[in-house]
Amino acid sequence: MKIAIIGIGITKFTEHWDKNLSDLAFEAGMQAVIDSGISGKDIDSIFIGNMSAGRFTGQDHLGAFIADKIGVNIPSTRVEGACASGALALRCGINSILAGESKISLIGGAEKMTDISTANVTTGLMGAGDEEWEGEIGLTFPSLYALMAQRYIYEFGIKKEYISYAAVKNHFNASLNPIAQYQKEITLDNVMNASMVSEPLTLLDCSPITDGAAAILIADEKTAKKYCKNPVYIIASAQAQDTLALHDRKSLTTLNATVEAAKIAYKQANKTPNDIDLCEVHDCFTIAEILAIEDLGFFPKSKGAIHTYNRDTSLNGKIPINTSGGLKACGHPVGATGIKQIIEIVQQLKGVCGKRQVKNAKIGMTHNVGGSGATAVIHILEKSF
Amino acid sequence: MKIAIIGIGITKFTEHWDKNLSDLAFEAGMQAVIDSGISGKDIDSIFIGNMSAGRFTGQDHLGAFIADKIGVNIPSTRVEGACASGALALRCGINSILAGESKISLIGGAEKMTDISTANVTTGLMGAGDEEWEGEIGLTFPSLYALMAQRYIYEFGIKKEYISYAAVKNHFNASLNPIAQYQKEITLDNVMNASMVSEPLTLLDCSPITDGAAAILIADEKTAKKYCKNPVYIIASAQAQDTLALHDRKSLTTLNATVEAAKIAYKQANKTPNDIDLCEVHDCFTIAEILAIEDLGFFPKSKGAIHTYNRDTSLNGKIPINTSGGLKACGHPVGATGIKQIIEIVQQLKGVCGKRQVKNAKIGMTHNVGGSGATAVIHILEKSF
Repeated sequence: MKIAIIGIGITKFTEHWDKNLSDLAFEAGMQAVIDSGISGKDIDSIFIGNMSAGRFTGQDHLGAFIADKIGVNIPSTRVEGACASGALALRCGINSILAGESKISLIGGAEKMTDISTANVTTGLMGAGDEEWEGEIGLTFPSLYALMAQRYIYEFGIKKEYISYAAVKNHFNASLNPIAQYQKEITLDNVMNASMVSEPLTLLDCSPITDGAAAILIADEKTAKKYCKNPVYIIASAQAQDTLALHDRKSLTTLNATVEAAKIAYKQANKTPNDIDLCEVHDCFTIAEILAIEDLGFFPKSKGAIHTYNRDTSLNGKIPINTSGGLKACGHPVGATGIKQIIEIVQQLKGVCGKRQVKNAKIGMTHNVGGSGATAVIHILEKSF
Repeated sequence: MKIAIIGIGITKFTEHWDKNLSDLAFEAGMQAVIDSGISGKDIDSIFIGNMSAGRFTGQDHLGAFIADKIGVNIPSTRVEGACASGALALRCGINSILAGESKISLIGGAEKMTDISTANVTTGLMGAGDEEWEGEIGLTFPSLYALMAQRYIYEFGIKKEYISYAAVKNHFNASLNPIAQYQKEITLDNVMNASMVSEPLTLLDCSPITDGAAAILIADEKTAKKYCKNPVYIIASAQAQDTLALHDRKSLTTLNATVEAAKIAYKQANKTPNDIDLCEVHDCFTIAEILAIEDLGFFPKSKGAIHTYNRDTSLNGKIPINTSGGLKACGHPVGATGIKQIIEIVQQLKGVCGKRQVKNAKIGMTHNVGGSGATAVIHILEKSF
């Protein structure tokens, strides 16, 4: 598989009090069109990743909504897989191109989360878990991941500080990223002493509520060369599922969907974890980043936290993780996250990331998770120049 | 394009007080697997059409949800396009096969609508329209379609009875369909004298709130022949969009998305309206059926209602429309409707519809609409035997 990314666009990730969902989607989509040098007429299809516009803003039917706001009449479809909605939309777009239905497809992700109360957002997000078996007894996403963190600490005898260092690193990276929600550094003391959300996760172990949109234009190799000298290529796209509820899983310290999707992706791309120069992983909570870097094969099981604390995943480490600042500090507008991850890797491979640039980055990976791990989507990207 | 349908499954369309969304999806999915003779392991991907599980039941992330309930770990993705969600899921499944990602794909549609109040369902469904410009000023779907009916009557000088006869016909068809929500005949007097919902549409001009699920298995031609001697083939799959809000359109008496999608579909299949033996159209309201049969090219603009009243779309008419009973009388579990339409055509082409069987049906069409016409999806099916 070789699908080219020929344009990118992204809004600032923040609380956008003066912009609604269509403003955000329009801004990201137009940026991607301008970046690619195509005209709107060249786009054959749109796929938009969004989790909860219906619950958060009252607006469903987002495919039609986005096509309308952009002013094009081409097939436009919303794809939803909770926090993995963005990456799933990309997968549908890739299929549209491989199927010969599209030459160029616009893939967007958008979420407007701040128009309702935080409590309602937290309840809404629980729709990503098992509503019947987890939501109705009062579990929320922080508490689901807190259970994983508890188990990780218990099973492997790990200090919580090692896990929480992921937040310190991601805030540092975000301090160098102009679109990030929190462009400021924090200390490990800040994380450890922040308000407790769900033992052992404090406020600063958790990703925030964010408004934002991201868009990319993808094309088949031949079409791409018309518009773009040196596109970044997607060389693997993989998706795997796991049970929706935590209690149905064999282990709380591994996300099986990540392990399975990674196997497929490495095989598709004919690469190993050692070939990956940097990776954007789904750090909705610090513990999620630790489990991800183990499940993706970068570090042995139980060693991810220690390696994080030892700076092996920092900007100049063995394998830089979440150079964008991750969900934790760049922000997490749910449906947009999967596309933002792709954009960060594209920019790193193009070498335009300024102070947060990873040197000699040639191959990057994105890891987008839905719910507490019931969906995992992995893409591997390679520069062609 | 030639995609085979190798299995079908459908629940009764009704108010399922004793079943939840997963019960319904499981029942339809398992029926389709049994019908096809494959085993669950043979399925490569799942695409599920659903509009509002998040708002209606609290459960989002339906791809993972369905894979979990069925007990398979294969890529499973939810697709949403309001009332066209089912047909859009089918389109993503078709692409997955054409792209070479899947040999067999399970396409489902499901909606559980009766667990919240009717008022909340009506508000939720307005998410399919333009929430900002239509929903916030109090428009609901009955009132949007009432505006179209008013204009149709005014512009063409048509008696309202002619439009409403679509409901009488559809109830008769549903009386012969064992899965239909309302298996009873009604008279034109019943429709005209029912409670007014939004002038000129009465209660019996409107489709009901329904629980239900439908599933089909699709495969590439070669794979299909292993499991199925004489599959029905999908020979066209087309999608078009229009503005979300009614006020942005040039006409209230035509759905431009339907006209555009039909053009593409007829071209893909190399057919004309005269080649179509029967059609399931999206009759969320009686006026919607009238506009559809004109926009699809079966009758000239302004003549659809008169032809309906003259029995030209009845079971033994020139072109039977909505032999299942349509959304009006078979029921309208939003996400399931697009797949139910496909199943009705498959059964008609197989000649297993008993008293509602259309004689010598060889080519059938489905027409699934999202919102007030911002999305239209058309499939053409042909028997191979």
